[in-house]
Amino acid sequence: MHTYKLTISYDGTRYSGWQVQPNANTVQAEIVKALKIFLKAEKIVLIASGRTDAGVHAAGQIAHFRFEQPLDSNRLQLALNGMLPRDIRIKKVEEASADFHSQYHASGKEYHYHLYLDRVIDPFKRLYCWHVHQHVDLTLLKQAAQCFVGKHDFTSFANEADEGSASRDPVRTLYRLDVVPFEGGVRLEFEGDGFLYKMVRNIVGTLVEVAARKRPLTDIAKIFEAKDRRQAGLAAPPQGLFLMRVDYELQDGKDDK
Amino acid sequence: MHTYKLTISYDGTRYSGWQVQPNANTVQAEIVKALKIFLKAEKIVLIASGRTDAGVHAAGQIAHFRFEQPLDSNRLQLALNGMLPRDIRIKKVEEASADFHSQYHASGKEYHYHLYLDRVIDPFKRLYCWHVHQHVDLTLLKQAAQCFVGKHDFTSFANEADEGSASRDPVRTLYRLDVVPFEGGVRLEFEGDGFLYKMVRNIVGTLVEVAARKRPLTDIAKIFEAKDRRQAGLAAPPQGLFLMRVDYELQDGKDDK
Repeated sequence: MHTYKLTISYDGTRYSGWQVQPNANTVQAEIVKALKIFLKAEKIVLIASGRTDAGVHAAGQIAHFRFEQPLDSNRLQLALNGMLPRDIRIKKVEEASADFHSQYHASGKEYHYHLYLDRVIDPFKRLYCWHVHQHVDLTLLKQAAQCFVGKHDFTSFANEADEGSASRDPVRTLYRLDVVPFEGGVRLEFEGDGFLYKMVRNIVGTLVEVAARKRPLTDIAKIFEAKDRRQAGLAAPPQGLFLMRVDYELQDGKDDK
Repeated sequence: MHTYKLTISYDGTRYSGWQVQPNANTVQAEIVKALKIFLKAEKIVLIASGRTDAGVHAAGQIAHFRFEQPLDSNRLQLALNGMLPRDIRIKKVEEASADFHSQYHASGKEYHYHLYLDRVIDPFKRLYCWHVHQHVDLTLLKQAAQCFVGKHDFTSFANEADEGSASRDPVRTLYRLDVVPFEGGVRLEFEGDGFLYKMVRNIVGTLVEVAARKRPLTDIAKIFEAKDRRQAGLAAPPQGLFLMRVDYELQDGKDDK
């Protein structure tokens, strides 16, 4: 059995997220369809490092599938990009170790979230930013961001995934949360060992409430303590979010994290 | 009579260009429609610095209209942006001198053209670049670009505009044509005192032919001499082109150029 690792970039605008759903365009469905045609296979199981929601983008999503015959990675990449819509691109195809698992072996991820802060949105950024209309205090935003860095129980910032993903450990370590300016706005760069469902968007929603002085900075510690999703701010909208990178530190990773 | 100058940014992807046409989405039609509603006017004549073709983008298009009553520029901007689709944004509204004319008084323009050169297109750039599949020699591209700088008769690089715009002077001065790298490609920055119809795209088409070694660098001088559009390369596709800025040096400009 051979395992192939795909590095995928997609503009999430037209899709109902990564995961196959009935009667919806999804990134997974597009890639599986192309794989089945190219490999003349009736079934291909394609697993990503994690699902992305409707409207969320990826610059470096990782997915894998297993196949009995050895494949030419270069030819596979060319064929897939030839069949896929242009808003989904396979950036790389590699053969991985046979037991490689894109989700279970992920040791870290980087997400970026783009806030547009100027009064008039740049039309070229309209599909890739959250246009925040309140005044955002950047000093306060940076201060608030630092409250999330480190090892925390992120229960208050996680939504329940719709499928019963049981009681996943809610403790995660955020290595950094940097506020980087770009023309017209700021990019929030998150790096951590793992992210719970909707965690980035829930943190961003809370950060903006604090930076717009809708609630005090001291609320963040209280929200963490409460371990209650209802205490945090509304989730930030999907189009500002990009999955940038997935890390795999161990060649033969652990079974779970 | 009052004259208002609009600075406009638009993503040209969904539009059949600037200029109103029957049975087509155009940027001009969208803005005129919004102006007529806001001003409760039956007719508004909105004139841009120049037409942009279908699929071409603008970060700093300038247009003007005249109106009998004085208007609050700020309110007008807010109202227009409230009515317009999000891929067209009014960046600025100013009252100009009564005789200001966005086309006749323009003294210079800046255009950018984006070439994407990596093997796999970045999906976020697919609508804003020409993905060139041949190998492009960047040294040769820069050399070729310099052949266009200066005062030239650009007849060989101009298409006839569809309306009989008579015999417009084909001599233009290109102040600079710089090749600026970005991740995955290069941006060609054009600044000049004026541009003939399709001139930028025709120059880019020729530049790419030379830089891909499809024709020698020495052809450029020959094409200029021939004063024949058929001698130059094919026009580069529209989606790589951005109108960045229009300059007006004189307050009370000349009548024509």
